[in-house]
Amino acid sequence: MLIALVLGLSVLALVVAWGLRGYVLRQDTGTADMRKISDAIQEGAEAFLRRQYRTIGLLSIALGVLIYVLYAFFRNPHSGEPAASTLALTTTLSFLFGALCSGVAGIVGMYVAVRSNIRTASAARSSLNKALQIALRGGAVSGLFVVSMSLFGVGLLYTVLEALHFEPTKIPLMIVGYGFGASFVALFAQLGGGIYTKAADVGADLVGKVEAGIPEDDPRNPAVIADLVGDNVGDCAGRGADLFESTAAENIGAMILGAGLAGANPGLFSPVQVVGLMLFPLVARAFGLVASIIGVLVVKAREDEDPMHALNRGYMWTALLAAAGFVGGTYWLLNPAAHPAAWWHFALCGVIGIVTSIAFVYITQYYTEYRYRPVKSIAAASVTGPATNIIAGFAVALECTALPTFTISAAIIASYKLGASSGLAHSGLFGTAVATMGMLGTAAYILAMDTFGPITDNAGGIIEMSHQPEDIRRRTDRLDAVGNTTKALTKGYAIGSAALAAFLLFSAYLDEVGQLGSPLQAVDISKPEVFVGGLLGAMLVFWFSALAISAVTKAAVSVIQEVRRQFQADPGILKGTSRPDYGRAVDIVTVGALKAMVAPGLLAVGMPIAVGLVFKVLFHVGAETVASFLMVGTISGILMATLLNNGGGAWDNAKKFIETGEYGGKGSPAHKAGVVGDTVGDPFKDTAGPSLHVLIKLLSTVTLVLAPLFV
Amino acid sequence: MLIALVLGLSVLALVVAWGLRGYVLRQDTGTADMRKISDAIQEGAEAFLRRQYRTIGLLSIALGVLIYVLYAFFRNPHSGEPAASTLALTTTLSFLFGALCSGVAGIVGMYVAVRSNIRTASAARSSLNKALQIALRGGAVSGLFVVSMSLFGVGLLYTVLEALHFEPTKIPLMIVGYGFGASFVALFAQLGGGIYTKAADVGADLVGKVEAGIPEDDPRNPAVIADLVGDNVGDCAGRGADLFESTAAENIGAMILGAGLAGANPGLFSPVQVVGLMLFPLVARAFGLVASIIGVLVVKAREDEDPMHALNRGYMWTALLAAAGFVGGTYWLLNPAAHPAAWWHFALCGVIGIVTSIAFVYITQYYTEYRYRPVKSIAAASVTGPATNIIAGFAVALECTALPTFTISAAIIASYKLGASSGLAHSGLFGTAVATMGMLGTAAYILAMDTFGPITDNAGGIIEMSHQPEDIRRRTDRLDAVGNTTKALTKGYAIGSAALAAFLLFSAYLDEVGQLGSPLQAVDISKPEVFVGGLLGAMLVFWFSALAISAVTKAAVSVIQEVRRQFQADPGILKGTSRPDYGRAVDIVTVGALKAMVAPGLLAVGMPIAVGLVFKVLFHVGAETVASFLMVGTISGILMATLLNNGGGAWDNAKKFIETGEYGGKGSPAHKAGVVGDTVGDPFKDTAGPSLHVLIKLLSTVTLVLAPLFV
Repeated sequence: MLIALVLGLSVLALVVAWGLRGYVLRQDTGTADMRKISDAIQEGAEAFLRRQYRTIGLLSIALGVLIYVLYAFFRNPHSGEPAASTLALTTTLSFLFGALCSGVAGIVGMYVAVRSNIRTASAARSSLNKALQIALRGGAVSGLFVVSMSLFGVGLLYTVLEALHFEPTKIPLMIVGYGFGASFVALFAQLGGGIYTKAADVGADLVGKVEAGIPEDDPRNPAVIADLVGDNVGDCAGRGADLFESTAAENIGAMILGAGLAGANPGLFSPVQVVGLMLFPLVARAFGLVASIIGVLVVKAREDEDPMHALNRGYMWTALLAAAGFVGGTYWLLNPAAHPAAWWHFALCGVIGIVTSIAFVYITQYYTEYRYRPVKSIAAASVTGPATNIIAGFAVALECTALPTFTISAAIIASYKLGASSGLAHSGLFGTAVATMGMLGTAAYILAMDTFGPITDNAGGIIEMSHQPEDIRRRTDRLDAVGNTTKALTKGYAIGSAALAAFLLFSAYLDEVGQLGSPLQAVDISKPEVFVGGLLGAMLVFWFSALAISAVTKAAVSVIQEVRRQFQADPGILKGTSRPDYGRAVDIVTVGALKAMVAPGLLAVGMPIAVGLVFKVLFHVGAETVASFLMVGTISGILMATLLNNGGGAWDNAKKFIETGEYGGKGSPAHKAGVVGDTVGDPFKDTAGPSLHVLIKLLSTVTLVLAPLFV
Repeated sequence: MLIALVLGLSVLALVVAWGLRGYVLRQDTGTADMRKISDAIQEGAEAFLRRQYRTIGLLSIALGVLIYVLYAFFRNPHSGEPAASTLALTTTLSFLFGALCSGVAGIVGMYVAVRSNIRTASAARSSLNKALQIALRGGAVSGLFVVSMSLFGVGLLYTVLEALHFEPTKIPLMIVGYGFGASFVALFAQLGGGIYTKAADVGADLVGKVEAGIPEDDPRNPAVIADLVGDNVGDCAGRGADLFESTAAENIGAMILGAGLAGANPGLFSPVQVVGLMLFPLVARAFGLVASIIGVLVVKAREDEDPMHALNRGYMWTALLAAAGFVGGTYWLLNPAAHPAAWWHFALCGVIGIVTSIAFVYITQYYTEYRYRPVKSIAAASVTGPATNIIAGFAVALECTALPTFTISAAIIASYKLGASSGLAHSGLFGTAVATMGMLGTAAYILAMDTFGPITDNAGGIIEMSHQPEDIRRRTDRLDAVGNTTKALTKGYAIGSAALAAFLLFSAYLDEVGQLGSPLQAVDISKPEVFVGGLLGAMLVFWFSALAISAVTKAAVSVIQEVRRQFQADPGILKGTSRPDYGRAVDIVTVGALKAMVAPGLLAVGMPIAVGLVFKVLFHVGAETVASFLMVGTISGILMATLLNNGGGAWDNAKKFIETGEYGGKGSPAHKAGVVGDTVGDPFKDTAGPSLHVLIKLLSTVTLVLAPLFV
């Protein structure tokens, strides 16, 4: 019956999302001028998504075949598990199903986002609150679709396999493919989207602002539509896929740990209670969905209010309700009669997760908003030119890893100790798993806020390009500024939750290796091979970031050349008498981005597999070396992603701070230096950083799925 | 008798160094104009060193007292070890002795380096070869002093304790303080020197080149002497202290492993042979010293030849002779009758180390010289401005971590497997230790090449500022370019050897923890506390780098203000009619650098201690958490240092490539972008990167010395 509740609540969330879609689509779409722009954005975004998901689909099918072959023919069978062909089939199908669900969620979210921008813009002509609500509800379609599709997929797979009479505690390991499918799609969605958005942005800025001297979002720039498209494919589709896979992988990982916990406490739980324990992660997620729906619906801003405050109120409601859900859920499902204190220990773990997510939000604000010291120091350093701007920004980027590290460290250890003292045996790791659930409990709301970003950014662009009056422009600028903040916060949140989830996924991996009959006593990095595995894992993060950043440069060069070509071919474009060929610029970025995402994508998928196989064949320590590769790679990835995300955000806002009139304001030498920093930060914060979140989780899921080959 | 050989050879090397000093001092000192400049450099450098070593001396004494108290009163006694007061005394005294020896080596090296510059400049007026020889031999005084003082110190401590009738195999653990003392001095020497050199450089460039529009090394710039002083205190004194501590820590760590190997193979070695096994690292180092002396003396360049070829010939001689020394040494000392294959297994490990050092030299060249793709790609990206220059450079910096990682990984595993298959029990780790010895075998020659850098840089400055004819200037420019290459190579070498040495020092730490009665079965990063230890260790590297880079900015600001003040106070300075007050600028950088080095220094020393104590008190896993802190911190440090060093070098040479006339040459927009990249790279490659080498080793030595407190 629990599973029916989970499926029911996720379908409910889908229905609400569909309703919000209707709400958004019913809104006014403004003037013909505005529609012309938004149609171009829509077309570009949908053309990109079509091509991107076609590529990803083909890659997924190829990998699916490979997984089937590896599982059916190269996997050593172990006692007590289903037949090789059955396992091969379930793993491959769940892989493909995960990829499919992620794709559907991404496409629906984008469909609504690129239709919300024009409606937000139109509403902004009369009311800030109305515009805010449309943008947030448009974003919520994406947020709710992503989280509920991820939950629904896992729930459905579980239901099907249970109906086929597989033993419930074996099911989670049979559906790890779902998480891998989700990561695989997320990797390419985030990489492709991230490369697209920054190639268009950097390309448009360099030729437009720097060479031709026209302002940002100027309709004379042939790459301006590509730039607006980019915000959608990077922040909406990319981050959506990222959090889809976070929640999917976390669900499955936590189910594995739940099954393990039941096994470690024989006789403590009745068979029904065992299923409750295992399904607890899904129930908690479903409660989080309900909390997020309520949070989205209560948001309402006064016309003179900072819109961020309104969003924060919604977030606090979501967090409170999610916490209440945790208390109720743990009391209901994690409450064995023999250990009456267990439930509140776990409830506290969930609260730790929620508090951690709030802490990440504040830390990210501290490092990326210009009210605080870090961004101010970058702005001050801009006075002496771009070099000191970059040095100061890089110092901030390095420094900003400290507080999140302390937070994550405290959260891991506190939830582990709380879990371990619950009275159950071996329940420390389950405590960290519950904290991760807590952190991800508000995911749908956070994602709604994130997609709010590209919607308001696009609305601002539409208002600007359709030459609306100054006071309307100021209104959309306010919303856009809030959108920049929420985008930065989401990245901080995504990396924090990836860090917590990683620890849970390691444990699931070790659990799986143990079930395969070769339990690892330890992941001992004082062994040379295991140490080398860690070294290679950490290096992968650096190398992958290099490829992601270079990919932006490569794709940007093609944009720059195209824009220059158009300016030369038709001098009327710069005069404003001819309309540039937006579509061609969009096409060129699309092709460039999809080509450029292949190298980093293959590295990310291939290297863990290569390390596992090489160390297995040469030194017979495949599983342990991969574990260390995974763990140290994750550590390195958390730090590097934080550096790149917050560094980029800080540079961005240092420029914005100067634009408020500080250090000479717009056009001053300090502002020029600020623009350099902002451009440098672009591929950091929107391509490499977010792709690293996905890389971290991909490492976990790829090793989970291929563990049998490394043992 | 072995120890007499070691002491004898190290004294021989000191005598040769003294002879080279005499050779250098006998050379012509050029015109009065030239001497005026070099006198100012000398004064400035010596004033800085005096103040710096006074500060370091006071800090060392304070820490020495603390070590004594901790050892005498807070260390739990273990069976079979000397009395607490004896251990406290030997550890504290060897700490102070290590600090003292490092200081002496640094001061003597600098004394000669700042006197070699003027003589190199003078010789350059008549002969390239003569100038090359003076610069290299001047550098060799530093190289030989550093390596032989480090060896002599360890040898002397061993002799004294043996004479006091301590059991030989217990001695290495009693003198780990020597390595800690060396690291402690190295940390502050490298930090202070690195901050000084870049604060002066960045400050002088920003006001001189950018604001006032005067060329580099222009005598009208009040900070020009501070800039020339900086090259000496950063590259000569700083790097000298860095390699002093590498060799000291490696010597002691390898002796600990040698003692452990003897213990693991009871009855295989006679008591005399056990001493031979333990002293093998010292003997190998002594042979390396002889090889380096010969290498330095054979260097001779034809007038029309690339001076780098001449230096490379000397290096190849040194490497070959060091390899021969290894073959002889292993045959002599690592040759138990029962395992006739053991010696050549270990000899091959030594050769692996030597080959690794050569591989690092080539990889560093590939990433930092403008003959190759990486630097060319940065130069090409400069055409579109500073932002793309920085993005391309950062991508190169991230990418260049890959090959060194593969090299180090291969070296660690190959030498471990070779060692393990030698026939002796538990001899794998000793194999990696021998590889480390091989890598450090050429240290004295490498350091001579490194100090060659600031000497030729200063010689170029002296020639430029004393207005010598164009053809002489071109000669010193050629030498200076070679000096830039050798400085970059040394950093690559230093980081490679630090990486290998780290693995050896981990093992020594685990060995020590075992001897303290609580052997660690594993350093298991799948435990939450141990994972968090690793996360914190990796973060320390980021945070420390942030502090080191910010320190440069802070100190540079004071230089900029002083130069501006002088320009305003006396307009005659820019007209060339008044002489600027060089001394005041030197003073200001000195004070600024010494103040700015305190925060990163305290963080580096304090954090491992804090982690060890907190995790011991709260969770009783101090030793294991510290081990993981150390290991993952080292991994992160290797990667970050490589990124910073090579990234900085690549930016530097991309600018130089443009200056050869590419992309518009000097003064073009591409060149301006190149200058921005070069300035950004300065604190990367000369402050934070080199300080990270030291940090890595400091983590090892501080944990070795304080291990008893964490158990």
